[in-house]
Amino acid sequence: MIKAIVPLKLTLFGEHAVVYGRPAIAFTISEHLAVTVKDSDEFLIKSDELPIKGVKVNLRDFKIENERIKGLLAYVIEAIKYFGEEKKAEISIESSVEPSVGLGTSAAVTVGTVAAYSAFLGKKLSKEEIAKISHEVELRVQGIASKMDTHTEALGGFVYFDERGGLQQLGRVNISFSAGYFRRFMTTAEMLKRVRKLKEKYSKLFDNLLDEIAEITKMGKEALIRSDEDEVGYLMYLNHGLLFSLGVTAPVLDNFVSTAKLMGIKGCKMSGGGAGGAVVCTRDDRVNVLMDVMGARRINAEPTFTGVQIFSED
Amino acid sequence: MIKAIVPLKLTLFGEHAVVYGRPAIAFTISEHLAVTVKDSDEFLIKSDELPIKGVKVNLRDFKIENERIKGLLAYVIEAIKYFGEEKKAEISIESSVEPSVGLGTSAAVTVGTVAAYSAFLGKKLSKEEIAKISHEVELRVQGIASKMDTHTEALGGFVYFDERGGLQQLGRVNISFSAGYFRRFMTTAEMLKRVRKLKEKYSKLFDNLLDEIAEITKMGKEALIRSDEDEVGYLMYLNHGLLFSLGVTAPVLDNFVSTAKLMGIKGCKMSGGGAGGAVVCTRDDRVNVLMDVMGARRINAEPTFTGVQIFSED
Repeated sequence: MIKAIVPLKLTLFGEHAVVYGRPAIAFTISEHLAVTVKDSDEFLIKSDELPIKGVKVNLRDFKIENERIKGLLAYVIEAIKYFGEEKKAEISIESSVEPSVGLGTSAAVTVGTVAAYSAFLGKKLSKEEIAKISHEVELRVQGIASKMDTHTEALGGFVYFDERGGLQQLGRVNISFSAGYFRRFMTTAEMLKRVRKLKEKYSKLFDNLLDEIAEITKMGKEALIRSDEDEVGYLMYLNHGLLFSLGVTAPVLDNFVSTAKLMGIKGCKMSGGGAGGAVVCTRDDRVNVLMDVMGARRINAEPTFTGVQIFSED
Repeated sequence: MIKAIVPLKLTLFGEHAVVYGRPAIAFTISEHLAVTVKDSDEFLIKSDELPIKGVKVNLRDFKIENERIKGLLAYVIEAIKYFGEEKKAEISIESSVEPSVGLGTSAAVTVGTVAAYSAFLGKKLSKEEIAKISHEVELRVQGIASKMDTHTEALGGFVYFDERGGLQQLGRVNISFSAGYFRRFMTTAEMLKRVRKLKEKYSKLFDNLLDEIAEITKMGKEALIRSDEDEVGYLMYLNHGLLFSLGVTAPVLDNFVSTAKLMGIKGCKMSGGGAGGAVVCTRDDRVNVLMDVMGARRINAEPTFTGVQIFSED
């Protein structure tokens, strides 16, 4: 029995801008997702926490009841196909956090399946190889996909994605964060469409906004390397305002971030696709109170640095 | 007896950026302030609505009780001094709106006093001359002062202030607006200081933000000339996000504007110095409901085009 533990992630700078070739920074947190692979006579996929809750799916003749379930399973299935479906297995997914809140759950399902199933087949893949294959799997499922989630979760820590498709791990960053998430009222796909509309209609304004986010992200990278919490925090607020201008925030996010600012929290911003979803702030107990007041679900946002981990159990 | 009626104003684009040589657009609204000048044996200033509420001030030997009162009176006194205090008068000020909420009340006191007192002295000044003298008076009181409030209120309508100190009246704009204001928790002076800090610390990011606001303001000018409500509205949201990044918004403003956006109101933004104060949206009945829900005081934001008006009564 092979178990892969995949850390979930938060985007610290550059979400949405990264879709248009700008840099971004993400980091892995304590919250994680586990994918377990064990011998079976049939291909079976199950999960008690994710939306495929309690359902066992037979890969040979499964019928999918709704699009959302299909969405999550697709990554598992495509990852297994990538390895030629060599050996039948039962695959279980456990997650402490709901999917689609901006924490990279679907990438984690992919990374976890690639890591655990490849180990199950006796292959010894490096984290870089797991990241690459996972991205390839995401591409097959989604058509287009950013490297950010799969690579951050496979490698772990703070990862800077540059404009040319390269990445840089920023090493040990001594800044702590608080985070949580709100219910989303639009999907990332819908938000991406909305942003694209802005680009089409006001291309110059759009490019300027994205260039400013890129500048903030680059300064954020240097500030993270220096573990300069004040500057990282300040840049988070700046980034949030630009996300407001891009049209991807939401009243509850704007109210939250703006209140955190007024309270003197060093930094705070929405994180991920927007329209609800995650907020991330520099570590502060008052952020937890604010999350309770405003109805966010708290998560454990302590940065982690291990990336995906594979365990074999008997 | 001479009465000057001065329209108050809202800033539609470019507040704060205008302090650093970027363009801005303001427009006059139905809310107004009246300055009445009549014969008297002594110089007297009184107001029932403004913070000098119920107090009669003898200009020869008056003592000012607090700085706030001093602030408002200073404009009246300086305006009278400008004309050499030629003729003793009682000056009354009536206003339907509180001062310091971002509607240009202090400029209106200045414009109204200049207009009414000059007419009282038998001088026939053009609106341009009244604007110029009022700006001069504001400069004497404040040390530095933007032309925006005095010139907009003296001339009326939608006024574009360019980067080189020039201005352009945009003529008839067929777009209606809804507006209101929240309590402010910081003064404009404090907000200006906060913005300056950002400039000093992150000059490149700062310049980019201001250039983007300038771009929005220029596009806003063209959209206003075309009476293109959709585009004006869209640009208002964009401008608000950049004001968030500049650090001059407030939770209640961000929540308001963001909620308006989610509700499908065409455009909405904070207006003026920030930290509370005015919000302005494209005309929509739901904005009034939202203001009631969130605790804003509604104002009549219907655009007006007359500028300062002088009446002589017997």
